[in-house]
Amino acid sequence: MTGLDQSARLALVALSRVVEPGHRGLWHAVQSRGPREVWDLLRAGRPLPGLTEELRAGALTRAEGYDPAADLRRLRQAAGRLLCPGDAEWPARLHWPADALAQAPPLALYVRGPHRLDEVVERSAAVVGARAATAYGVQVAQELGLGLSDRGCAVVSGGAYGIDVAAHRGALASGRTPTVAVLACGVDVAYPRGHDRLLARVAEQGLVVGELPPGCSPTRPRFLVRNRLIAALSVGTVVVEAASRSGSLSTIDRARSLGRHVMAVPGPVTSAMSAGANEQLRTPGTVCVTRTEEVLELVGRLGRDAAEPLRGPADVRDDLPETVRRVLEAVPVRRGAGEASIARTAGVAALVVQQVLPPLLVAGLVERHPEGWRLTALGAGRPATRRRTG
Amino acid sequence: MTGLDQSARLALVALSRVVEPGHRGLWHAVQSRGPREVWDLLRAGRPLPGLTEELRAGALTRAEGYDPAADLRRLRQAAGRLLCPGDAEWPARLHWPADALAQAPPLALYVRGPHRLDEVVERSAAVVGARAATAYGVQVAQELGLGLSDRGCAVVSGGAYGIDVAAHRGALASGRTPTVAVLACGVDVAYPRGHDRLLARVAEQGLVVGELPPGCSPTRPRFLVRNRLIAALSVGTVVVEAASRSGSLSTIDRARSLGRHVMAVPGPVTSAMSAGANEQLRTPGTVCVTRTEEVLELVGRLGRDAAEPLRGPADVRDDLPETVRRVLEAVPVRRGAGEASIARTAGVAALVVQQVLPPLLVAGLVERHPEGWRLTALGAGRPATRRRTG
Repeated sequence: MTGLDQSARLALVALSRVVEPGHRGLWHAVQSRGPREVWDLLRAGRPLPGLTEELRAGALTRAEGYDPAADLRRLRQAAGRLLCPGDAEWPARLHWPADALAQAPPLALYVRGPHRLDEVVERSAAVVGARAATAYGVQVAQELGLGLSDRGCAVVSGGAYGIDVAAHRGALASGRTPTVAVLACGVDVAYPRGHDRLLARVAEQGLVVGELPPGCSPTRPRFLVRNRLIAALSVGTVVVEAASRSGSLSTIDRARSLGRHVMAVPGPVTSAMSAGANEQLRTPGTVCVTRTEEVLELVGRLGRDAAEPLRGPADVRDDLPETVRRVLEAVPVRRGAGEASIARTAGVAALVVQQVLPPLLVAGLVERHPEGWRLTALGAGRPATRRRTG
Repeated sequence: MTGLDQSARLALVALSRVVEPGHRGLWHAVQSRGPREVWDLLRAGRPLPGLTEELRAGALTRAEGYDPAADLRRLRQAAGRLLCPGDAEWPARLHWPADALAQAPPLALYVRGPHRLDEVVERSAAVVGARAATAYGVQVAQELGLGLSDRGCAVVSGGAYGIDVAAHRGALASGRTPTVAVLACGVDVAYPRGHDRLLARVAEQGLVVGELPPGCSPTRPRFLVRNRLIAALSVGTVVVEAASRSGSLSTIDRARSLGRHVMAVPGPVTSAMSAGANEQLRTPGTVCVTRTEEVLELVGRLGRDAAEPLRGPADVRDDLPETVRRVLEAVPVRRGAGEASIARTAGVAALVVQQVLPPLLVAGLVERHPEGWRLTALGAGRPATRRRTG
């Protein structure tokens, strides 16, 4: 699906207008039939596998008399552009395995701002947290935003009150690296209203991104679906301050499911606003970060930002004996492979593979996959220095 | 060395008077020759392997005209008692492998208080941190002290200003479980002076413990050597608030080396007094704790304190295939075993054992040992519910 022609692009705009973002059935249909055919079937009221009758009825109602070219004109008026999969600017990171999340990758993106999104997010950290942040959280988010931007790392957030806006403001104050605001509405919509000037500034100096056509308003489900986009666009996600069970933790959950780096800023155990972040620190895999450099260690460029000696399991593979290493090297990175296939590739007995893989699973070097086994980021290399861009 | 007679006990008192505590050469000499012979050689100015000429000269000077019976009388006057290895009250936990720490286990302990030390520390947590604690640290330490004591867990600390005294005070306020103050001086010495009433109260309601004879003053090295005793007496150690490179972190280091649970309370990244605790949270193996229940999960009695579902790798062994589980079950808990011996016990081929053990090492289920391999606490059971009393 590279180099979509104009009619396919218009079909993607139409589909993003008539079906809520993140729908897996629709996404799969588009992957297999192409956007035009799916759009033609939908607006003709024809059945589509993976889409319920109710959803198709709703889409049909919305499609009536609708012209996607009008959305594109409106986007251009707001100095926005449409990004589609296959475009050079489309971030490779936005593809994820079908079962990694309950929601599908975006069909298309709407973007405002003078930078290439793929290049900006190459080295990026999402900084997220509570709307009702305390002075502590606001200070930390602002300093992280400033520090990350100063060091060439794009700050990705949601443009909301509290932690989001503090992170964006820090990045804008630095001015060295574009900051990315990912909205749960049209990129021409100033939400929250009080952030209209901030969002205008981000659109001038950074990037405003969303997957809803111009004019769309945010809804509660759209915020949650948007959060997966913040997680997916970023090399890692930092939660600065969040109450227990806060919605902002959903971004962290998505980052974890996508295999991205998950970080949390510790805070006072006496502060309800730090309870969610501190809980994350009790979850295996979350890295405690207290300053910019520690975030950069995880999301920065290989060998450039690792100023201090890295901690944690780095060269675990060096400790493994020859046979085990051969098994590990036979496990694929992206798609899973069955044990028989791994045994063949490694040139060892299937019995050995069966015995070696489960301990490697416990060690966090491999993971189960619908098709068998595949490497984790730890198994594939050093987690603290190599980015995961899958 | 069980059931030491009076002359051996007097020899241990004498040795703890003339040589600084924690000396490995002296400890090994006592293990192999017995306390009387070592004391006789020392005071006769005779050579002793493992003790430098300088150390022997110093000991000889101190030994001149010294009568250990006088120390025991002074101890009794302070309502104290002597504990020696082999006594029923001697905590089994106070033996550690020769190479686990740079310092040796205590030769003997001086104790004041109406409880049995071995029973009190059976279920215990060291609560440690900065002398110059902030109001935040004091509040958290006091609440932890109160909460742990309320739930039947002894609070072990060093009787110092700041976090120590807050933890002791919390435990005393609860009154349900004796608190243990481990001193870097004689147990009859009120240090710091401002804590004379507090220490008197601990000696009445809890236990005051040390390894220096009556009247001894604290010195800087004695504080560090004392810290290993706090770590060794406790099932786990919690650092509440500590500056980066703070001396109180040495207790955490010792706990880690001894294979005890290591915990840290998160704090604001903007507070220098939380920098040390937050750094600990970046170290693999440290558990983030935010309230009493989370400490009890690690140091409490099996199945009793685990109110919430446990997180982290709990039933990792259930995921292992039959052969691997058999290998794991053939690995001993305390002493190490060689691969051939493990293969025999497990009834599997030596080649399989060689391949399975290294991944289990990476998984943290087994560890290397001078004599081969042995189980870690994780490999031996659930780390969050079973105590390590080795």
